[in-house]
Formats: sequence, structure tokens, C-alpha cells
Amino acid sequence: MQLPNPERPLLLLDSNVCKDNIKRMVEKCRENSCLLRPHFKTHQSQQIGRWFSEYGVKGITVSTPAMALYFAEDGWNDITIAFPFYRGQINVIKKLQENASLRLFIHNENDLHFINNELEKPIRFYIEIDNGYHRSGISPSCRSEIEAMIDAGDKLRHVHFHGFYMHDGRTYQSRSRKGIIESIESSVEMMKEMKNLYPEANISMGDTPSASVLPSFEYLDECTAGNFVFYDWMQYKIGSCSLDDIALFHLMPVAQAFPNENRAICHGGAVHCSKDYVLDDDGSKNFGQLISLDNQNSVNILDGKLQSLSQEHGMLTVGEKSKNILMNDYVCTIPIHSCLTANLYDHYRTLNGEIIKKRILS
Amino acid sequence: MQLPNPERPLLLLDSNVCKDNIKRMVEKCRENSCLLRPHFKTHQSQQIGRWFSEYGVKGITVSTPAMALYFAEDGWNDITIAFPFYRGQINVIKKLQENASLRLFIHNENDLHFINNELEKPIRFYIEIDNGYHRSGISPSCRSEIEAMIDAGDKLRHVHFHGFYMHDGRTYQSRSRKGIIESIESSVEMMKEMKNLYPEANISMGDTPSASVLPSFEYLDECTAGNFVFYDWMQYKIGSCSLDDIALFHLMPVAQAFPNENRAICHGGAVHCSKDYVLDDDGSKNFGQLISLDNQNSVNILDGKLQSLSQEHGMLTVGEKSKNILMNDYVCTIPIHSCLTANLYDHYRTLNGEIIKKRILS
Repeated sequence: MQLPNPERPLLLLDSNVCKDNIKRMVEKCRENSCLLRPHFKTHQSQQIGRWFSEYGVKGITVSTPAMALYFAEDGWNDITIAFPFYRGQINVIKKLQENASLRLFIHNENDLHFINNELEKPIRFYIEIDNGYHRSGISPSCRSEIEAMIDAGDKLRHVHFHGFYMHDGRTYQSRSRKGIIESIESSVEMMKEMKNLYPEANISMGDTPSASVLPSFEYLDECTAGNFVFYDWMQYKIGSCSLDDIALFHLMPVAQAFPNENRAICHGGAVHCSKDYVLDDDGSKNFGQLISLDNQNSVNILDGKLQSLSQEHGMLTVGEKSKNILMNDYVCTIPIHSCLTANLYDHYRTLNGEIIKKRILS
Repeated sequence: MQLPNPERPLLLLDSNVCKDNIKRMVEKCRENSCLLRPHFKTHQSQQIGRWFSEYGVKGITVSTPAMALYFAEDGWNDITIAFPFYRGQINVIKKLQENASLRLFIHNENDLHFINNELEKPIRFYIEIDNGYHRSGISPSCRSEIEAMIDAGDKLRHVHFHGFYMHDGRTYQSRSRKGIIESIESSVEMMKEMKNLYPEANISMGDTPSASVLPSFEYLDECTAGNFVFYDWMQYKIGSCSLDDIALFHLMPVAQAFPNENRAICHGGAVHCSKDYVLDDDGSKNFGQLISLDNQNSVNILDGKLQSLSQEHGMLTVGEKSKNILMNDYVCTIPIHSCLTANLYDHYRTLNGEIIKKRILS
């Protein structure tokens, strides 16, 4: 593949792979009668959002009211804000309600009353279930709190119970398809039990590993996965995807090569990659996996990685077989965590040279 | 201090402390007859740049040609780009030369000839010296390469040798003022030796720890430190500054409090903080130090920290004495690494409520 000689680091998007990833998840959800409300925090691009729209997706998930506004401006009017509501957000929620119907995560009854008093249009809420991963949410054992919130939703004018949401971050510890399926099992059972207790509840889950590899979603009403749009090196190591499913690549100029030391300084540091890493088998950190793309845009894994990052510098080390690459003008890596890497750019460049704009920052 | 109830996370700037930090470094450099060319990658703000200008600073240091353009647009015309030059940058270098005189980091003779052929105006170059920290630069033992580059600079029409630069990242491993002074000693000796060998060379160094604590800079022609404008929790732990020198704070809404578990979920994740951390004495990671600001805007360290981050979630844990703070609408932290945190925002809010815009991303 011919790539440009870059003036700065850039994110390369294989739009064919990206569209295939979207299509596959849409079809899987459709076959399972599960509504796909994909999380758009990964790509944060109106243009990529439209690719979902072309495959029939109607509703989306975002992290913040500001991100919801960005997509509402492009016509999305069915939006879940998948982060615990807090009161400072109320004015932007009102503004969003002018054009979109919203679903919020609410975790206490007081906030239900607060919102009911503030809003003039109806809003729906999820109760987020904490499966023990201890990010946000409520333990399913807090039955009286859950009952009280659902009851309040029945009685209040503007605020109505929608269902239960869970993000099982434990699947990210897996290292195989089998591991993912085993690690999600207890969460699936937990959600099935919630559905038995509250049959009116919509059951919603969202981690990309289980959404990618579970053979069926019959227990799910909604899927909110997002990372599958690009995948990344972490998802590949987890077992969520094949190499050919990865749609996002990081092109980094080689700024200084030390071929005798099997290393180079790339322009690609923490402000380009983020500082997320995976641990390789030998226990060392990997901040970006060295690859090459062949003429068919297939990925070849090379023996090299970003072993450390400073603000602008990426310290690339390579094995003997890959040292010729140090003399190139640039190298190509797979981002460790595409959500955090994409968050640091204002556009993608497709393999055909098209610029795809995205939202910047929060 | 009265703070706003935020709609989203925000960066609070104590502009008085920031201006004091600038003034102190300007005066220290002046007393040492050392030219301060501060690194502007930390604040990335034209407005804060003007505060330096008011104290008489004429030249600056940046990381990239794009960052140089941003500051050149505000009138800066004496700019060092402190990252190894690569050929993809040549067109933007030409554009920058229309309004600014530049100094680049160049590490091989071929690039000197390439630049000489491409440019129509003179440019100066540093040879970056690697003291063994193995980021970028050339070992001082590569005498023939260094000589050849200096000789080339004497003969070429547009490209002239300016001096030696070193960033000694090893000072970041220190945990006391004494430790910083000891760890910089061998680098200072190395640079003194370079000056003896090449008396025409300007000697330039830039790490904030040594710039902050060394009693004198008599060996230095130029200082390019940057982080001192704000400092941060890492610099405080290193021993570079006192608590009262820290000018940047991170305000995070509390999204869900678990007072019985001494923890809360804050809106403040990897996309707000970056994933840089320091290790606390017990070996656990600290992604943001919990503090409070009193009525005089003095910092009180509280027994709490962000112990982990996901994309949007900050997982705050607190000791018994600080658990009341979990019931507030927001908490205040000191960023671990202010350069990376500031890079994730498009503005600062001063304690007086003034909005100070900054550059976003690269």
C-alpha cells in the first residue's frame, strides 16, 4: 500500500473494514431481535455515525451530554447518555430534549424527583447494575433501592423506568474467546434474574468483547457496544476480534533511527497514543504494536512495539528481522485502545486519502 | 473559595500562582545570565504566552511545527522546535520561516544538506545530547558525527550550528531537592565538557526539576523548562516545587457516591486526566491527588485519590477523615502531569471565572 509521507502523526482508517464491522454487529443484533444502540464514544464522528444510519441504526449511546449534542446536531434523536447523571448537567439535558428523546443513568430516587421537577418533557432512565466490577452502578442486592426507583418511575410525570444496564469490564481481562464467554456468564445470569424480577425492564449490555464473541444475545434487549467499530490491539489480545477486523492504524514519522540499537524515536507520544498499554507475555509494556500493511491492506504483525512514551516521543524497539523498517520515513502501529487514541485526533484519514472529521475533546 | 457547580470536568487555573512561577523563573534566569526560552507545550495558550512576554521573554520552545504556527500567529518570532526534525515537516518549516527565526534539533549530516537545499532563509540547529536516558539525541562519545555536523554548519549557506541541548529525564526519578541536584550533576558535567570542546556552542537544558531547584545556572546559556508554569503532583513528589507553587487544579463532578465504601465515581477519566500516574508509598497508583482549596486558595492535601480511570470514570477512594467530601457536588484534584492533562482541554477557568483559551491537540 502507498501511504503518504506524513508531516505529523496521523490515524489511518480502513473504511471497508470499519463498515464490515458495523454491518456484522447490526446483523447479529437483528438476528437476535436485540436493538443495537452503539456507543459512539469510540469514533466520535458524525460521518461514521452516518454509516451506522445506512445500516438501519436509529438510536445511539454516548458518554456525555456534550457528545449527545454533537450527534443530535447531525439528526440523531434517540440517545442514551451512558454515564451516571449529575445535577450540573440539567441545563444541557433540557437543551438536548428540544430535539432528542433521552435515556439517562440514574442511581438514586432523589435525582428522579429533581429531574421530574426540572424537565418539561418525558425522559427514561436506566438503573445501572454493578456486577462487582465496581465502576458505577448499584449492586443487584440493593433490592429496596431498585424497587423504590422503579416505583417512583411509575408515579412521576416526566421520568420513567426504562431498564437495566451493565458494562462488564471483567471481560477485558480475558485472553481468548472462550475466556470472554466464561467471564460474562455470571453477568448474563444476573441480568436474566433482573428480567425475571422486572419483566418490563429492557436489558442492556455493552462490552465489545462479549458482544463480539457470544454466539447469541437472546437474553439482551439492547446492545450498546462501541469499540467494535475499529477494534484495537487490546481487543485482539482479549480475543474479541481477528487481525483483519482492526480498522484503525497509527502512522508515525520516524524522527531518529538507531539501527545498531534496534530502536527508533517516532513522533507519536502520549498526546497521540494515550498512555494505555497492554502487558506482553514477558511482562513488558506495549504502547503500540508495530505492523505493516500489505498491498491488499492486510495486517502483518512485526516484531516491534512502542515500549515507552513521553509527551511527543514514542520509543520504538524492534527485533533483528524488523530492523530495516527503522530506515523508513514512517512506521505503522495498531493502537492499544482505539477509543483513547481516537479521542486525541480531530480527523481520520482513510486508506483512499479521504479526510473524516471528528469531534475533539469533551 | 466559591467554585461553580460544574456541568462537566474543568481545569481551574490560579493565575496569580502561575504568574509568580513565571516571574520567579524569569528572574532566576536573568540573575544567571541565562536566556529563558520556556517550553510552551505545557500551557499551549497564547494568552498565557503573553504573561511570559510581559516579563520580558522573547523566545520560546515548542514540540512541533504546528504548535510553533499557533504561537507565531500571536507574534512569537523566535522559536525552538524541540523534537528531532524529520523530512515530512519541511513545508511547514518553510511556512514558519516567513515570520519567525527557528532553531531545530537535527541529528545527522544528511538532513543538514537536505534542509540547506530546501530552505531559502537561514536556520539554526541544536545537536541534542543523549546523557544515557535514551530518548532522542546523540551520545557525546560520537565525536566524529558531532564534528562533521558542526563543520557542515560552518560551510552550508542556510544551516548553522547553534548549540547543544539536553533533556535529562532522570531528574524525574528524584524524590527530593537534594536528589534532583545529585541526579543532574553528571549531565551538567557532560555539558560543561561539550562547552570546553566547542566554545561557540550555546548550552541549553530544559527539565523542570533541575531548573526549579538548582541554586545557579552558571553553566547554562539557555533554559527551556516549561512545566514550572503550572507544576503538578508529580513535580511536587519529585521535589521540584512546594504545594503553593501548583497553579492547576482539576474540578470533577461527583457522579455517584458510595459513602459506606469510602469511594465515589467522578466525572474525570482518561480523556480528562490522561493515564499518567505516580506510585504512592504503598505501591498503589495515583491518577489524581484529592485536595481542597481554602478561602485564601491555599491547597490542603486530603486523604484521597483517583485510584483508577476508565474512559470517562474516575474512581475516587478516600480515607475516613475525608469521606464527607463524597457528598459534595464536585471534588478537586491536583493533576499528576499537568502537560498531559492540559493537552486534553480547550480552555482553563481562572479562580476569578475568566476563561483562558488554549490550543487543542496536535
